[in-house]
Amino acid sequence: MRTTRSALAAPEIERLVELLGKLPGLGPRSARRAALHLLKKKDALMAPLAEALTAAAGKIGPCGECGALDAQSPCAVCSNPTRDESLLCVVADTGDVWALERAGAIRGRYHVLGGLLSALDGVRPEDLRIGQLIERAGRPHTREVILALAATVDGQATAHYLTDRLAGLKVTISRLSHGVPVGGELELLDDGTLLAALASRRPM
Amino acid sequence: MRTTRSALAAPEIERLVELLGKLPGLGPRSARRAALHLLKKKDALMAPLAEALTAAAGKIGPCGECGALDAQSPCAVCSNPTRDESLLCVVADTGDVWALERAGAIRGRYHVLGGLLSALDGVRPEDLRIGQLIERAGRPHTREVILALAATVDGQATAHYLTDRLAGLKVTISRLSHGVPVGGELELLDDGTLLAALASRRPM
Repeated sequence: MRTTRSALAAPEIERLVELLGKLPGLGPRSARRAALHLLKKKDALMAPLAEALTAAAGKIGPCGECGALDAQSPCAVCSNPTRDESLLCVVADTGDVWALERAGAIRGRYHVLGGLLSALDGVRPEDLRIGQLIERAGRPHTREVILALAATVDGQATAHYLTDRLAGLKVTISRLSHGVPVGGELELLDDGTLLAALASRRPM
Repeated sequence: MRTTRSALAAPEIERLVELLGKLPGLGPRSARRAALHLLKKKDALMAPLAEALTAAAGKIGPCGECGALDAQSPCAVCSNPTRDESLLCVVADTGDVWALERAGAIRGRYHVLGGLLSALDGVRPEDLRIGQLIERAGRPHTREVILALAATVDGQATAHYLTDRLAGLKVTISRLSHGVPVGGELELLDDGTLLAALASRRPM
C-alpha cells in the first residue's frame, strides 16, 4: 500500500532531510542517514550542531580587508603584524585560504576574490573583489602578487585577466606551478598534468 | 610560517566543522566544504538548518508502540487504523521503516529493534527492544512476523535468535528473500548473492 505522502517520516524530519541534502557531498540518501544519526544523538550532536550553526551565523563574516570569512574584521591574518604585507596571495575562496594556512605555505596576506570569472556561470569581473585587489596591489609596500587559482579553464582565464589588470603596477605577478602532485603516481595522472610537468621540468 | 593553531579559521568555524564531521558520510574535508557552503548561504540554509535541528530535537522521539522515530506516539503507522495489525515487520532501525514505506512494501505495522545483535560491538539481546516484540507478537491478532533484517552476519544472527525466541508463539515467521537486486548486473554481484539467488530460483 503506497502512501500518498512522498515518505512517511514526520514533517520535522522531512524538513531536516531536505536542508541537510543541500549540503555539498550529501545526497538524498546520505541526508536521510545523517538526519537519523542526529536524531539518535540529540544531546551529543544535534543540540550542539544547532548551537554551533547559530553561533557561526551570528559571528562569522567577510574580512573588510581581504574578504576571507572570519570572526573578526580585519581577519586574524590581516591583523597579524608578523605577516609579510609586501606579499599578496590571491585566491578564489576562503576554503583556499584554509588550505594554504594548513600547509603553512604563505607568510604574506591573502585576497579572496569570491569566485572565478566564468562565461558559463555568468560571473563577470564586477562580481568579484577585483577593484579592491587593484587598490591593495597598488599600495607602496606591495611587491609581489601570487595568483593561487585553480588550474581549470575558469581559474586560468581569471589569472590572465588579473595579470592584464595588474600590468601597470610595480608588482611581480606569479602563479602556482603545475606538475606532478607530491605522492602522485605518474600512471594515474592526466595528459595535461604530465605535459605541464615535463614542460616545466627542473634540473636535479 | 606555520601557525601554532591546527588551522587558522575562527573557533566558531572550527567547532562547526568538527560537528559536521561527525555526520555519517562527511569526512574532515567535506565537513569544511559544508561549513563554507553554510557560511555563504546564511539566510537561505544556515539559519533554517539551525531551526530545523531545534524543531526536530524538540518534537521527534521513539513511538511507544513500535519504537520508530516520529513526531507523535503512537507513530503515524501505529495509529493508522487502515494498517493490517496482524502483520508485524521487524527492522533494525527507523531508516529501514522509511525505506520500506518509500517502497510501499508493507501494509502491516513495524517493530524497530534499535540495532542488531553483535558480538563484536557488544550488543546483547537486552540492549534491543526484543521483550516488546515478543509481547506484540503474542497478541491474539498477530499472525505473521516478517524479519526484514540485513543479509549480514549480525542481521542473520539476530534473525536466528528472534526465530528461537518467537518459536512458541502461534505466528508465521518469515524473512526477506535473498537474490539478484532488481536492475542488478550479474557480473557485478558477489558470489554469496549469486549462490543464494541460484539456490532459491523460481519457475518462470
